[in-house]
Amino acid sequence: MRARVLVRPKAGILDPQGQAVERALPALGFDGVRNVHVGRLIELDVEDASQLPEMCEKLLANPLIEDYEIVQ
Amino acid sequence: MRARVLVRPKAGILDPQGQAVERALPALGFDGVRNVHVGRLIELDVEDASQLPEMCEKLLANPLIEDYEIVQ
Repeated sequence: MRARVLVRPKAGILDPQGQAVERALPALGFDGVRNVHVGRLIELDVEDASQLPEMCEKLLANPLIEDYEIVQ
Repeated sequence: MRARVLVRPKAGILDPQGQAVERALPALGFDGVRNVHVGRLIELDVEDASQLPEMCEKLLANPLIEDYEIVQ
């Protein structure tokens, strides 16, 4: 089964990549862009999808500073 | 409007993060995991969604080595 995991910085945690994108877009002529956040996308084939939350907690995300969302 | 951009390495392009995850999961006791790919997730508020493909081509993705998908 193909699964997708979205990992984002938690609210309130510094997101320097998102800030860099938010500053760079107007400089390239794109206006009206707000609240940019950059995270990770992990796509994988798993035999047992019930293991996915534990995989996220242990390896795919850092639960101290990141939230994850599993999309199947 | 909130938009989400998924950026992935193109097929055939080396994906060292994906390989590292694929090797690390069995070492943590998770078996049956295949075809792991790691990419980026960008979420942003845009006023004009028609600008998103150009933003991807110019800043959010590297079109030489990455594919992007816009989800609105």
